[in-house]
Amino acid sequence: MSDHGAHRPAYAARRAALRDLLVENRVDALLVTDLVNVRYLTGFTGSNAALLVYAWDGAEERTVLCTDGRYRTQVGEQAPDLRAEIARSSARRLVELAGEWQTGRVGFESHVVTVDQHRSFLEWGTGLEFAPTPGLVEQLRLVKDAYEVERLRAACAAADAALATLLDRGGLRPGRTERQVARELEWLMFEHGAHAISFETIVAAGPNSAVPHHRPTDAVLTAGDFVKLDFGAVVDGYHSDMTRTLVLGPPSDWQREVYELVLESQRAGREALKPGAACADVDAAARSVIEAAGHGELFVHGLGHGVGLRIHEAPAVGKTGTGTLLRGVAVTVEPGVYFPGRGGVRIEDTLVVREGGPELLTLTSKDLTVVD
Amino acid sequence: MSDHGAHRPAYAARRAALRDLLVENRVDALLVTDLVNVRYLTGFTGSNAALLVYAWDGAEERTVLCTDGRYRTQVGEQAPDLRAEIARSSARRLVELAGEWQTGRVGFESHVVTVDQHRSFLEWGTGLEFAPTPGLVEQLRLVKDAYEVERLRAACAAADAALATLLDRGGLRPGRTERQVARELEWLMFEHGAHAISFETIVAAGPNSAVPHHRPTDAVLTAGDFVKLDFGAVVDGYHSDMTRTLVLGPPSDWQREVYELVLESQRAGREALKPGAACADVDAAARSVIEAAGHGELFVHGLGHGVGLRIHEAPAVGKTGTGTLLRGVAVTVEPGVYFPGRGGVRIEDTLVVREGGPELLTLTSKDLTVVD
Repeated sequence: MSDHGAHRPAYAARRAALRDLLVENRVDALLVTDLVNVRYLTGFTGSNAALLVYAWDGAEERTVLCTDGRYRTQVGEQAPDLRAEIARSSARRLVELAGEWQTGRVGFESHVVTVDQHRSFLEWGTGLEFAPTPGLVEQLRLVKDAYEVERLRAACAAADAALATLLDRGGLRPGRTERQVARELEWLMFEHGAHAISFETIVAAGPNSAVPHHRPTDAVLTAGDFVKLDFGAVVDGYHSDMTRTLVLGPPSDWQREVYELVLESQRAGREALKPGAACADVDAAARSVIEAAGHGELFVHGLGHGVGLRIHEAPAVGKTGTGTLLRGVAVTVEPGVYFPGRGGVRIEDTLVVREGGPELLTLTSKDLTVVD
Repeated sequence: MSDHGAHRPAYAARRAALRDLLVENRVDALLVTDLVNVRYLTGFTGSNAALLVYAWDGAEERTVLCTDGRYRTQVGEQAPDLRAEIARSSARRLVELAGEWQTGRVGFESHVVTVDQHRSFLEWGTGLEFAPTPGLVEQLRLVKDAYEVERLRAACAAADAALATLLDRGGLRPGRTERQVARELEWLMFEHGAHAISFETIVAAGPNSAVPHHRPTDAVLTAGDFVKLDFGAVVDGYHSDMTRTLVLGPPSDWQREVYELVLESQRAGREALKPGAACADVDAAARSVIEAAGHGELFVHGLGHGVGLRIHEAPAVGKTGTGTLLRGVAVTVEPGVYFPGRGGVRIEDTLVVREGGPELLTLTSKDLTVVD
């Protein structure tokens, strides 16, 4: 974990923003047990942690981060400004502390806390009232700050550079298997600065390109194939997400047509990304292009999703999406048309919603790339 | 996903075994929403799914697997023997079906179902009674069948072969960074048949080897260092887990001593793996060796954990473990001694509990390997 670049993560500012939400939600404290949320609020990246944040003014000294003995050193390094507790069960220790401190009403992350965990909270926290407060930290995470956009940019750059290198060195050619291409692409992302892979890389050749979420197999790339690549890099916890569909050798008329259609749809989706736009309208802007061509039923998924410390996060940009876009939200735009048994095209970018039009983070060309 | 080898996964037999547990737990059906459990019971590997299993005899025809439109083809291929439904929310569709079928008492996985999801179940399933039935499928998953052991063996073999190749080609040498070694080891696991990586590979050199769960950095390997490698491969969903600690160049007396101590502790732990043994006793068998040497407080974690479709699953083999081992359970044995700021040793195998003594799945030598 290295925090390069000009911007620094503003953990204290994020906790301050969270406090406003706690007051709004009428809880005295929030028990944060989602590890990604703990990381967002503190910088701590261990695999066992919980955080107790108080709503009161000047409550920063009461904020407690708990983890287990394996992370004693790490927690001091990553979150030196916070009081740290060491315990086998982080949540239990913090619930007990909240009880000792007679906290009153404690919010918990009911969207991630299981029914069994909740029952344990009630046992451990005698005298406490637990209030379901789902998605508070996620609400903050929706809008990316300058540091986060910088990290997303770095993640997208690693993916862009990996694909460019793969093509440069002839890594995409008839005779190789989907799996070989996937492994090389992942390897190249690491070479270009990725700390991890965003998700299982999709390489889908020929008829497999018609399967939206195909897993790479030993299927051999063949001249004339569409090859769909959907992949991403993680840098400092931030995920990139990009899909490109290429053709091995001269494209047929059918391939050109479907590619142009998806590209036009994707452009319409990107152009609809504006602060205040309804997510469902953004989806409709892209979908209507495909529907007008008579292929609406072949676009079997939503247009996109938020991306950040998780590969899939709010907002959902689909037919039934209910939210509206805010300035600084990072989303994918990824329409696809899939002809079962024949082949499919998806084109996907990661972008940040901006006032004057979205900022494109995945910079690889979207012209139809013909690999000779 | 390929199902190589002589054994086939026995999905129908697993569902039959689950039915006995449903009867025992007095529920008419179980709503399975944990994706790993769905996979275990059906073979379906998509990222959105739920399964409704009925307790009644001859209820196999009523078993319904639900996923979304992206997986229409895949669900037919992977679970051809099951009735499949397609819906955006798999859980919702199955709860509604259970309601239509007047199911009565529906068990749910309260250890993974969130408080918010549970509330939704109650809304969707009018007339149904929901009963928390945590860990039923996990209970079955505890004991590995022949197919599962074969897949675990293949996963361990991929990790063994990767480390052997890394050493053969001089990949572990002064001057390289932890990160470079980690990436090469992962690459080699793929080359040797891994479908994925079990968890973020740990490469920890010199003082970093004293951090139990160190993440690879740009720290440079130096002559005289301990290098701790903790890594694993996934094959057909099954995870291997192995740690080896090597020395770069001739070991000092201190290094020899701590290595021999951990090895003796690990041997004691392995020898204690017997059907019927209490998990806490297995931990104690290994821990007492380190305690006798006066280093008990430097062994800061449990002895091991179950391994299978997840990298960490039941049973927990630690001080406070409450279970006993059964024949066919797959566990790790991984004692460690960590001298902060100086260095540490962990030695870990994956094994299967057998009547006549455990079957070792990770076959790499545990003699102190000196890399010249």
